[in-house]
Amino acid sequence: MASSVAFQGERGAFSEEAIVQQFGASVRPIPLYNLSKVFESVELEQADSAVVPIENSLEGSVNETYDLLLASKLKITGEIKLRIRPCLISKPHSGLDDIRTVYSHPQALAQCRKTLEKLGLEPRPFYDTAGSVKFVVDSADGSMAAVASSRAATIYHCRILLKDIADSKANFTRFLILRRGPLRRVRGLGKSSVIFSSENRPRALYNALGVFADRNINLTKIESRPTKRKPWEYYFFVDFDGTDSDKPVREAIAALITRAGFVKFLGSYPRSP
Amino acid sequence: MASSVAFQGERGAFSEEAIVQQFGASVRPIPLYNLSKVFESVELEQADSAVVPIENSLEGSVNETYDLLLASKLKITGEIKLRIRPCLISKPHSGLDDIRTVYSHPQALAQCRKTLEKLGLEPRPFYDTAGSVKFVVDSADGSMAAVASSRAATIYHCRILLKDIADSKANFTRFLILRRGPLRRVRGLGKSSVIFSSENRPRALYNALGVFADRNINLTKIESRPTKRKPWEYYFFVDFDGTDSDKPVREAIAALITRAGFVKFLGSYPRSP
Repeated sequence: MASSVAFQGERGAFSEEAIVQQFGASVRPIPLYNLSKVFESVELEQADSAVVPIENSLEGSVNETYDLLLASKLKITGEIKLRIRPCLISKPHSGLDDIRTVYSHPQALAQCRKTLEKLGLEPRPFYDTAGSVKFVVDSADGSMAAVASSRAATIYHCRILLKDIADSKANFTRFLILRRGPLRRVRGLGKSSVIFSSENRPRALYNALGVFADRNINLTKIESRPTKRKPWEYYFFVDFDGTDSDKPVREAIAALITRAGFVKFLGSYPRSP
Repeated sequence: MASSVAFQGERGAFSEEAIVQQFGASVRPIPLYNLSKVFESVELEQADSAVVPIENSLEGSVNETYDLLLASKLKITGEIKLRIRPCLISKPHSGLDDIRTVYSHPQALAQCRKTLEKLGLEPRPFYDTAGSVKFVVDSADGSMAAVASSRAATIYHCRILLKDIADSKANFTRFLILRRGPLRRVRGLGKSSVIFSSENRPRALYNALGVFADRNINLTKIESRPTKRKPWEYYFFVDFDGTDSDKPVREAIAALITRAGFVKFLGSYPRSP
């Protein structure tokens, strides 16, 4: 049986597009209501892997994914970069002049903020991009539209009023591929991800980052998230070039453990072009 | 005439609560539809100052505020920390058993995620907390509730079904007070904020942070935001202890200018306890 890949959203979500871009028709995508169910499905062996959004090049990090990575035992085994082309989608018989309100996931609405403002359309947050297409097509009101992938328009037999309406064309989302451990070796160029905590005192974060700088390891991303235990204390999520097959990387992680209160290695994986 | 303070949301928003906590009844709060209008109102001298949310101790940073700070000429002149006590609010004659769906701002819904899940209530994102109370009270449907401040329940004559329903009691939001320049001197203990860009090469971010570490200046927060010009390049927003009255701070900023491609000083301001 084809390998199963869980994702958040309805059929036609951008996450499903990322799965198809990466794996073609060789896998079975499983749509799930929210991100915590996506993580759970792999943890409980109901799915073989998951594809989850981690950051968008316009809107930044997906906080919920970061928080779930902290709590989860899943490992990162790959990344996918997808060019996002959000479309304005309506019921089959609506025209652009009919539309007043636009439903979509808050991040998708944010990516098209200026375009929607120019068109005089009122954004309405919805839990999912493809789900908003379903919602619009099921409604009796012809003045509603959705922002979602062209794939979603096809699946729900809707009309694409405008294509690729993001404020910037530099609109990419990076997704992570997650699996249960143990980790497999990565051959060739790769990246790794790690989480650590840092005390709120002078030089603490700087000293922690020093384990990478001392070994000339390039950081590709640093993200902070509140610990949720004590206000204004943070976990740091760092992505860097190199894999755990490289001696400097193994040494940096060992050094980090002596400098940071908490360290969690999330995995090494091939770098997406 | 009383000094005017712009905020995002409807009357009864948590931002209004922050304004009242800080200034009492001595100022005139001005509710505005979105954060960009809040910034604009001060820039265009329609309001004397603004109070905007920058981070929550559970949900993390408010990305839109960070992005607006980058583009704006406004300066940070203070911060306010407010304990958030979200309440489940219904129409006057609804009871807890009647409720099926809960409307609120996505951040407020996220803060109460577990509580709402336990109660079997379906979260529905809405553009504003207090606005969702208005929406619920104006609707004919008695199965709808909102998550907002007790202040909003009072203003819209609604019923508080449950008080303080956040998943964690360590639920604080930090707000910034913004004004037009020029900057005023801060006496006593204070903080400062700066934005800089960093190249995507080994040691670049580390070297930039070194200007603070070399002078034993404590970083209280570091946040990265996509530049939106080129995917996977970031601006860094750093808060640190000390004000521009301190020589080490002035030296650190001068050194940062030589190490980072872009530096913008956002201001020094008294530290909120």
